[in-house]
Amino acid sequence: MLLNKNTESKPNLMQYIPELRVVDATIRDGGLVNNFRFTDEFVKDLYIADIKAGVDYMEFGYKASKEIFDEKEFGKWKFCVDKDVKDIVGDNDTDLKLAVMLDVGRTEKKDVLPKEESPFDLIRVATYIHQIPAAIDLIEDAKAKGYEVSVNIMAVSKVNDEQLNHGLEMLANSSTDIMYLVDSFGAFYPEQIESLAKRYVEIGKKYGKKIGFHGHNNQQLAFANTIMAMRCGVTYVDATMSGMGRGAGNCFMELLLGLLRNPKYNVVPTMDFVEKHILKLKEQGITWGYDFPYLMTGILNCHPRSAIKFTQDKRTDYKNFYHEILEMD
Amino acid sequence: MLLNKNTESKPNLMQYIPELRVVDATIRDGGLVNNFRFTDEFVKDLYIADIKAGVDYMEFGYKASKEIFDEKEFGKWKFCVDKDVKDIVGDNDTDLKLAVMLDVGRTEKKDVLPKEESPFDLIRVATYIHQIPAAIDLIEDAKAKGYEVSVNIMAVSKVNDEQLNHGLEMLANSSTDIMYLVDSFGAFYPEQIESLAKRYVEIGKKYGKKIGFHGHNNQQLAFANTIMAMRCGVTYVDATMSGMGRGAGNCFMELLLGLLRNPKYNVVPTMDFVEKHILKLKEQGITWGYDFPYLMTGILNCHPRSAIKFTQDKRTDYKNFYHEILEMD
Repeated sequence: MLLNKNTESKPNLMQYIPELRVVDATIRDGGLVNNFRFTDEFVKDLYIADIKAGVDYMEFGYKASKEIFDEKEFGKWKFCVDKDVKDIVGDNDTDLKLAVMLDVGRTEKKDVLPKEESPFDLIRVATYIHQIPAAIDLIEDAKAKGYEVSVNIMAVSKVNDEQLNHGLEMLANSSTDIMYLVDSFGAFYPEQIESLAKRYVEIGKKYGKKIGFHGHNNQQLAFANTIMAMRCGVTYVDATMSGMGRGAGNCFMELLLGLLRNPKYNVVPTMDFVEKHILKLKEQGITWGYDFPYLMTGILNCHPRSAIKFTQDKRTDYKNFYHEILEMD
Repeated sequence: MLLNKNTESKPNLMQYIPELRVVDATIRDGGLVNNFRFTDEFVKDLYIADIKAGVDYMEFGYKASKEIFDEKEFGKWKFCVDKDVKDIVGDNDTDLKLAVMLDVGRTEKKDVLPKEESPFDLIRVATYIHQIPAAIDLIEDAKAKGYEVSVNIMAVSKVNDEQLNHGLEMLANSSTDIMYLVDSFGAFYPEQIESLAKRYVEIGKKYGKKIGFHGHNNQQLAFANTIMAMRCGVTYVDATMSGMGRGAGNCFMELLLGLLRNPKYNVVPTMDFVEKHILKLKEQGITWGYDFPYLMTGILNCHPRSAIKFTQDKRTDYKNFYHEILEMD
């Protein structure tokens, strides 16, 4: 594929990066679309499809605090009780590693059991720039409990350079193994990803951290930005089945696996999964993916919540919406 | 935006290329979706939207031979009789230039009137690599009649380097003003567009030709590839409203205008057009745009016709389809 270790040299379509790791974030980012109300069959079939496709990690959702969120309003993957995961994966005697996300300020450390008692391999911490000290608290706790740990700084398209540099240095000095570049609002063009990814990768090299990328498809650039990130030395890449994720969704797993040249990856197992499960969700009226209002929040660098509401309200007065969000700033 | 004149230097998001020209190909490539059966209101409103949006060229369809094609099977924009265009645009006393496509082997030179009798400014010739001598015949005829002329070499993802170099040299020695890099099958990744666009631009510089790009969205890369082409010195870029075009469709005009920083361009006029006309076509069951089977023909570098049929037949057995097209090769 388009990658080689020396990102300065010409790309070579026949090569691949052995260090690359694919993370399936369907349950977690897709759960934001349907309040985590996936059937056990969906989750089990996704687990099997990921194993067959050679995916490296499957993320199961959030470990959200039941003191903050009402269990009745969400499916169980909002909370990811370890037992619920074990009911799906048993002892997970496979090469697929399991991940779960902790949102800073919405998680109890006590819900993260020691690794040896848990089905999870990777704890993913999600933080806004101003929460980094609290994120480091979660990172150190998870690391001490024996996990591989990653951290996402969300909404960096709203963060200035000086803040971001400070934040990256703080995280690079923590015990996290992986730091993620996240395009929360689908606001970035490939050239911007190039510049940011190089910064993250440079800091990663200095401190011995791997770098990840998580994109959104507001401008139909989630896949292109993922490719660009990989060219710049990013080795952890997120994707979701048919891009299922908040608002415009994410990089399509089908596209990513169609590109990757490492023989361990195989796009074919995604085909039956999409036919059986994704088409059914779409028929049920679960909605995500590129649409005009998401383009607008993307180019204006806003949270997609207004576009999600516009879509849910079945509005089509695009121009009015554009002027509404222009005036929000 | 992401461009500057010196493509070797760092991109700069605040700049734009004054030489850039946006071509609306909705009626022509979109006509392949609905057999050119657009209402006059659609075409007129598109013409007005393009003017307001600052689009540089509007392509009206093909000048197909009525001796080859049955008029009853197509809307009038398959044939683009000059009078039909004048009924929409009058004397076209605007900055929007009008274009029409000639398919080599499917066009009569006699249907191309002298420029002073015609509403068209730009004649676009579409050719396969083996038809280039016939394409040059059309190019020289159109040039002699007073038109600006461009030429698309189609399906270059199936053409080897030596053939392509010969073809480009032949066209560069013709009277064409513009040569187009075309990703007919949506098979190219941005890195491949980078390499090809640089070749086209280099030859263009040598012979004083401008270079264009026309993409397809099989891998959700039409916009990203268009951005890459522009970074490499391509100055004519095609887009269609909501990507309307054959199979997976094209680069969305909304995305392109959302990116371009030249104050002459304005994305807002596309909003009412999409609401009024594109949503109606979608409701009528006219289908185009990214879908799993188009990804498959894209990565396998095939013509999308099998995927179009799969979609029209409302099949969803993706895996069977994948194995069918694998066996076609």
